[in-house]
Amino acid sequence: MSYVVGIDGGGTKTTCLFNKPGSFSYPGSDSAFIVTGEGTNPQSVGFKTMKERLRRLLSNGLSTFNITAGDISAVSCGIAGLGSSQDIKHTEKIIKEIFLELDFSENLFLSVHSDSFIALYGAIPEDKEEGILVISGTGSNSLGIINSGEFFRSGGWGHFLGDEGSGYQIGMHALQHLTKAFDKRGAPTLLTEKILNFMNWDHLMEVRNFVYQHKADKKEIAAFAKLVIEASEERDEVAVRILKKAAEELVLHVESLHLQSGDFHKDTPVMTAGSIFENSAVVMNYFQQQIHSRDLGVISPARSTPVYGACLLAEQLLKDNRKVR
Amino acid sequence: MSYVVGIDGGGTKTTCLFNKPGSFSYPGSDSAFIVTGEGTNPQSVGFKTMKERLRRLLSNGLSTFNITAGDISAVSCGIAGLGSSQDIKHTEKIIKEIFLELDFSENLFLSVHSDSFIALYGAIPEDKEEGILVISGTGSNSLGIINSGEFFRSGGWGHFLGDEGSGYQIGMHALQHLTKAFDKRGAPTLLTEKILNFMNWDHLMEVRNFVYQHKADKKEIAAFAKLVIEASEERDEVAVRILKKAAEELVLHVESLHLQSGDFHKDTPVMTAGSIFENSAVVMNYFQQQIHSRDLGVISPARSTPVYGACLLAEQLLKDNRKVR
Repeated sequence: MSYVVGIDGGGTKTTCLFNKPGSFSYPGSDSAFIVTGEGTNPQSVGFKTMKERLRRLLSNGLSTFNITAGDISAVSCGIAGLGSSQDIKHTEKIIKEIFLELDFSENLFLSVHSDSFIALYGAIPEDKEEGILVISGTGSNSLGIINSGEFFRSGGWGHFLGDEGSGYQIGMHALQHLTKAFDKRGAPTLLTEKILNFMNWDHLMEVRNFVYQHKADKKEIAAFAKLVIEASEERDEVAVRILKKAAEELVLHVESLHLQSGDFHKDTPVMTAGSIFENSAVVMNYFQQQIHSRDLGVISPARSTPVYGACLLAEQLLKDNRKVR
Repeated sequence: MSYVVGIDGGGTKTTCLFNKPGSFSYPGSDSAFIVTGEGTNPQSVGFKTMKERLRRLLSNGLSTFNITAGDISAVSCGIAGLGSSQDIKHTEKIIKEIFLELDFSENLFLSVHSDSFIALYGAIPEDKEEGILVISGTGSNSLGIINSGEFFRSGGWGHFLGDEGSGYQIGMHALQHLTKAFDKRGAPTLLTEKILNFMNWDHLMEVRNFVYQHKADKKEIAAFAKLVIEASEERDEVAVRILKKAAEELVLHVESLHLQSGDFHKDTPVMTAGSIFENSAVVMNYFQQQIHSRDLGVISPARSTPVYGACLLAEQLLKDNRKVR
């Protein structure tokens, strides 16, 4: 009995899916062998904790589903926070140590990727080998793969330098518009009241302490995005403008992938992921309409989740390596 | 013999001007009694160091110009970093301690202001009692005073929340445009080469470390503004666009003051200060043109410097208090 394993290592949660090649189960289906554990982004938790958590997760999966370590044929992971090829090599080394410690087979295949890459791989429709995935949650970025397997990306420069169209940027624009409205440099907006209520602030000046003394982090700023979305549903003009600008930035990501590859076309499947697309009709509608009207692709539902993409990559690894032998 | 003293306490330098009421000397003129010392912004150096440095500066001035402490009749200061009325009260208390320690007269008058306020007061033309000052250096803000003495401000929310049109924002936009150009999400720009050269970077990816690991501060980011100005002079479109956007934000500050007061008019003198106005013809020209075409005032040269404004405030203090008695 052979198994492939996919791992999706995020900032707050790590998911691990065990699948039998030839009879794959989607995450969410009753027959899926899936375990979850704490976040394993090495930029947040360090490589040592990443190793401990990945080992515990794998060991937990093996015992939960009564799988013998030696029956695992291939493992693919997508781990958040792997910024350089050096990080990827270091992570490969660490995971190979885990394999030794847990008595995995010596012929096991392993591949380590960014979390975005397994998300793209899991999202591409079953009958396609190319596609574009645009992600907008706390951060934002966009990835595309063409039939040849060549891979392109846009964005993902982090909250200060980039992440255009992300929850962070939407939240920050909301705060900036508050100060503009306060100064009468911009239109009045429902956001003022909503943010004061949400934060339990008596006066807008408290926003200064929140940003400079408390040094609000990117997640705290991104949390304001949901208030912007709420205000947009009440037709607040400032909120709608912020969200349309975000959507426009996300369209630019797709345009960028077209310019980078030259191989994408008007029928390329374009998938979306992340809380901003999921929760904002303004962002989703503007994005879809622009993708179609600018011939940048066909909006398609994602096939499955990132951890499923990792399993597909593990299976691919197995096939490719068998072919070679 | 009576003297009034003006103090301009900045982040990196503090200036102190001693003047005889009735025969004021401008800073820069040969007869001006002026001494300078280190920065006294209490947010950067703490209140204790602020006190030490102010005492040293005053004591230095008295001995340099052979003035008896008891001959000082009024002191006005503008100190950077005084964010709240509590900060101002605390600073007043500290300066009164210095007066005691240095044997100043007990009948001495004192007023403490923000650095922006003395800048406005020093800038207003001699024959006017109203005016608007727009400042764009590392940060940005705008202040106005009307004939009744009522005072208005716009901006100055700091580099994350506001400072629109500032060197920081110009620098940050430059970095964001670099990443956009790299991704082909934006037009190519001379800024890429200029910034790589300036920073001695081999590859643009080093910008990530600069921002996230090195955690570049607002001054380091604002330093890129001069490269944007350079590129604009070589007609780089991206640079020109960044600077025009900055200028537009600075015009909004003036518009805001008009909306706040209702008393400013098309002949209100509008003065500018700070390195961005001084160094960028694009910003200055666009700003001047918009101020005139939108009837927001008449661009006027500043009368003098902030420390001179502080001296004028000290003199005013003396007059007002004499009137009362």
